[in-house]
Amino acid sequence: MREIFEAELTQLGDDLVAMARRVETAIESAGQALLTADLPLAESVIAGDMVIDALNRDLDERCVMLLARQQPVATDLRVIISALRIASSLERMGDLARHVAQVARRCYPQTAAADQVVDLVTSMSQAADRVGERTVRLLATRDLALADEVERDDDLLDELHTASFAIQLGDTWTGTAQQVVNLTLLARYYERFGDHGVSIARRIRYLVTGEWRTA
Amino acid sequence: MREIFEAELTQLGDDLVAMARRVETAIESAGQALLTADLPLAESVIAGDMVIDALNRDLDERCVMLLARQQPVATDLRVIISALRIASSLERMGDLARHVAQVARRCYPQTAAADQVVDLVTSMSQAADRVGERTVRLLATRDLALADEVERDDDLLDELHTASFAIQLGDTWTGTAQQVVNLTLLARYYERFGDHGVSIARRIRYLVTGEWRTA
Repeated sequence: MREIFEAELTQLGDDLVAMARRVETAIESAGQALLTADLPLAESVIAGDMVIDALNRDLDERCVMLLARQQPVATDLRVIISALRIASSLERMGDLARHVAQVARRCYPQTAAADQVVDLVTSMSQAADRVGERTVRLLATRDLALADEVERDDDLLDELHTASFAIQLGDTWTGTAQQVVNLTLLARYYERFGDHGVSIARRIRYLVTGEWRTA
Repeated sequence: MREIFEAELTQLGDDLVAMARRVETAIESAGQALLTADLPLAESVIAGDMVIDALNRDLDERCVMLLARQQPVATDLRVIISALRIASSLERMGDLARHVAQVARRCYPQTAAADQVVDLVTSMSQAADRVGERTVRLLATRDLALADEVERDDDLLDELHTASFAIQLGDTWTGTAQQVVNLTLLARYYERFGDHGVSIARRIRYLVTGEWRTA
């Protein structure tokens, strides 16, 4: 019995990594679609989000089944509850990648970012890509140096979010209302993407160290 | 033992209702602060969100403890897992009320909504108030007619979200960049508030009927 249970827990971990890989690809593709006005790529991110949602539902059901069947305590319980929450964060990160792709699609054949903010949006996209990539490796290796890196990239995303307001409300801003809408949404989506990355990083840290860091 | 467990489950339900009441007050006050540029009211919503966060953490810990100690199966397990998720949705709704209040605070002494969109923002605020109020009653009574009403108000919030884009990108729009930022964020916050209300409504429906409705 214990061996089967162990195998199921390992499978759960592997599935989280696979789910995170899809999120990583989604956010990278969404950023590329956004910055290059690549409509087919945007469409593929939007369509692919259904797969991430389905993986979440599947993982979720298996966690609840494991709770019911195995009645785990202590560490096992903590692992399963964490898996539930990490899957939920990954699902939201997939949604946010889809939202970024939807902005790209809505603007096509134009690019969504005004010339003035291409660098800013590129920085957001790159920081989010790093969050995606490190989340995969963190889930696979539990190397907490990666958790620290995710927190730093989230800080950067918060700064870029604040900078987006300063630019749009500054004297030199010449963008259209559409471009203000785009940047406001994109900055918010990327900022939330970082938050979910941090939420996963903290769960892994807690699983590894038993200590919860709130800020 | 069973009696104590039953009492703990009842307490969990009561605490969710209490948490939902705070969310209801928060979203109502945030909307009022927003529409009347009431700074002290905005500040009170912002400060009060810490209490909602603390209630969530407390509820969360108790759910995990109940899982560990009681090793529940079937309906009891479903109730506890649902409580975990409903608390998490309520916590996010509290965050969104805080975000609305933060928009009000940032704009003070001006009101955040351009004259042209006061009616639109008022409708968003009222729909969100109804979601808040019905979520409390739904959690307290499990009357599924209320779940239907939450879904309808969420549909309305989605329509108002779409309408906000149409107005800002239309020919008659005369707002400033700041007003575009405000409305874009507010429409998004209210739309997400509705989503979380629906998520709670569906969990309650599932607890009552055993059937999951995805759309």
